[in-house]
Amino acid sequence: MTQTLPSAAVLGARAFAALQGLNRFSDEPGKLTRLYLSPAHRQAAEWTKGAMEVAGLTAFIDAAGSVQGRREGPVPGGPSVVIGSHIDTVKDGGRFDGNLGVVAGILTAQALRDAGIVLPFALEVVAFGDEENVRFPTHLSTSLALTGEYDPAWLDARDSEGARLAEALVEFGGNPAGIPALARKPGSVKAYLEVHIEQGPVLEVENEAVGIVTAINAQSRARIQVTGEAGHAGTVPMSLRKDALTAGAEMALALEEIAAGHDQAVGTVGVFSPNPGATNVVPGAVEFTIDFRCPSNATLASMNAAIHERFAAIAERRGVGLAITPYATAAAVPMNPGLQDALAAGVTRAGGNLSVRRLPSGAGHDAMAMATLCPAAMLFVRNEKGISHSPLENMTEADAGIAIRVLIETILELAKKGA
Amino acid sequence: MTQTLPSAAVLGARAFAALQGLNRFSDEPGKLTRLYLSPAHRQAAEWTKGAMEVAGLTAFIDAAGSVQGRREGPVPGGPSVVIGSHIDTVKDGGRFDGNLGVVAGILTAQALRDAGIVLPFALEVVAFGDEENVRFPTHLSTSLALTGEYDPAWLDARDSEGARLAEALVEFGGNPAGIPALARKPGSVKAYLEVHIEQGPVLEVENEAVGIVTAINAQSRARIQVTGEAGHAGTVPMSLRKDALTAGAEMALALEEIAAGHDQAVGTVGVFSPNPGATNVVPGAVEFTIDFRCPSNATLASMNAAIHERFAAIAERRGVGLAITPYATAAAVPMNPGLQDALAAGVTRAGGNLSVRRLPSGAGHDAMAMATLCPAAMLFVRNEKGISHSPLENMTEADAGIAIRVLIETILELAKKGA
Repeated sequence: MTQTLPSAAVLGARAFAALQGLNRFSDEPGKLTRLYLSPAHRQAAEWTKGAMEVAGLTAFIDAAGSVQGRREGPVPGGPSVVIGSHIDTVKDGGRFDGNLGVVAGILTAQALRDAGIVLPFALEVVAFGDEENVRFPTHLSTSLALTGEYDPAWLDARDSEGARLAEALVEFGGNPAGIPALARKPGSVKAYLEVHIEQGPVLEVENEAVGIVTAINAQSRARIQVTGEAGHAGTVPMSLRKDALTAGAEMALALEEIAAGHDQAVGTVGVFSPNPGATNVVPGAVEFTIDFRCPSNATLASMNAAIHERFAAIAERRGVGLAITPYATAAAVPMNPGLQDALAAGVTRAGGNLSVRRLPSGAGHDAMAMATLCPAAMLFVRNEKGISHSPLENMTEADAGIAIRVLIETILELAKKGA
Repeated sequence: MTQTLPSAAVLGARAFAALQGLNRFSDEPGKLTRLYLSPAHRQAAEWTKGAMEVAGLTAFIDAAGSVQGRREGPVPGGPSVVIGSHIDTVKDGGRFDGNLGVVAGILTAQALRDAGIVLPFALEVVAFGDEENVRFPTHLSTSLALTGEYDPAWLDARDSEGARLAEALVEFGGNPAGIPALARKPGSVKAYLEVHIEQGPVLEVENEAVGIVTAINAQSRARIQVTGEAGHAGTVPMSLRKDALTAGAEMALALEEIAAGHDQAVGTVGVFSPNPGATNVVPGAVEFTIDFRCPSNATLASMNAAIHERFAAIAERRGVGLAITPYATAAAVPMNPGLQDALAAGVTRAGGNLSVRRLPSGAGHDAMAMATLCPAAMLFVRNEKGISHSPLENMTEADAGIAIRVLIETILELAKKGA
């Protein structure tokens, strides 16, 4: 006997109740802190495994610490659609980042099971554990275990207290030796879908509940050192100054202008530190960071060239020294166009006043890793004031429900398309 | 029997030898650190007293810790011309700042005595002790003792180790109760002259050995707080940002432009501190300092108005909050025009290729205090690279000699003018 699918309102209520359950587990009382392989992570993984089982999935905690749940399709061991996100958090983080995507997957599996819907593929839900890059200097290691790109050197990574990742994994109940076997065979995963809070204000400003991610942005970071000449703030005439701070200020404004002038790009100076940093001394040096991102590698290269050119011109005109030291560059990861269209169809199928809004992701996600294995796509959920990585992170129950309903409809769309 | 006056070259050699003697006294081995009322200050005061006596002055260490030397004129106790500067230093300071002016006064008295020149006024040399504002939160207290403006509350000031100024003064050999009696009667001092290293690069750039100070600049300082909205560096589009750092950067550049656009003005942002100060966070707040100075109070007021107007416009356009908190304002202290002219005549009388270059002082000096008692003027000496408050502070022996020769000629000019 099939039931009808639950409404968005019901799904939202279920999601918030589930998040309340999952988010009891924290490494710090009064805050939500759940670092990779911590005791709270283990408890949350057990909770997740239980929730998956209640939703009709066969679940286990894998060798790298992810929770995997699966309902077979017509052919046992056959190709699957994976819904995933992560259950690790930053220190004193928000309730939705990662956790919502895992809960969305579980509630989707449950709703489809309850409605008696038979899918032409296996359905999997995965709760990854190493997305936030907080405890160890690793990033996305648990999803890269599925793609076969896990680097064994990561097992030697240490946290700030000196604990080795390999030992922490064993203590957690994982198994370093079992990680290679987690790699999925090419073709065994038909699609990866991830629901995630936006971590930005775009959807709120545009009054959209959900948005389809076009790409995870290309990103580059650099340390900038400007060297001028220190001097007495009262006695060195303006015409004779080589003020490193005002040179740096001009560069910060140039970066802002360059970012505003490139499609969907952002550019940020977050650290800015003059030396000696005294009221009555013209700064002789300043060190600052730049971070710039955009959805296309070509645009990133164009921004990088513009930054070098503008900064060099400012330094030359002002007679100050300039050193640009890039220290992190990541290529853009486009989301699969066909899977974006399936999400768009899911948005349309979900009805209501939803429109198909597409936007890039400025932050990294497990979908970046999964995109090397299979078509991957993401659905963003409206984020109150865009506040992220904070206990003030928020979304409405209604929006959470809409996102899960869209996810369910997307699975049905994929099922309809055969697969 | 009168001798001729020593040449600038001889005076320079004497000055460097004397400075070597005086600068043996430091509170920190290997550095020149001589804080007000420290053991090194006491030793330096004794040395100074001895040097004054050798130069024919009757000398004593006064109740506030200054060394005073005097050669009477035609009428014992009659009006005097005072040559002064200070023998306290900053921590790890330069050899010339203050010390040169004291040595210049002593060598001037000696040269005039040796040449058998009879002046129509008494000649005094004073080595002040509290100019650098380092040990106690007092400034110019020893010269203000002579002007009658010593505030008894200063005796309760404490240094960073909790020592009270009054106790430190007694330990030094001074006498808090004797300070009021140090006040000079109006009219008892005809002129105050001070030779000082420029603490800036103007004379070097213009290839002048010495310059006549027109005014000690008016000065204002304020703390600026800009409040925007913190956000994720990757996910908040440029159009939705309220970036406090770029707002602050624009204000720093506006200050630079305002200073460059006002006559002989300077403006400096020395402290600049974004919050939270992380590479991947759009700064939600920034706090910085502004320091601006110029020779005229009217110009300072005009700068202040321009700063308020420009900063407010930037804040409004960018949608950020702005708080400007002034915390130190000092009016300009013009140097006495007649005494400036006497210095100019001294420059001309000294011969050589000297030209009369006038410039404001961006830093404070004991002459600021003395100007409330009597006509005061200053002669700046070329400063290698303008480096001040540093062991790298430097000047040539030739320039030191020229400055002392100009000082001697200025005394002769004042003598010639009657007085």
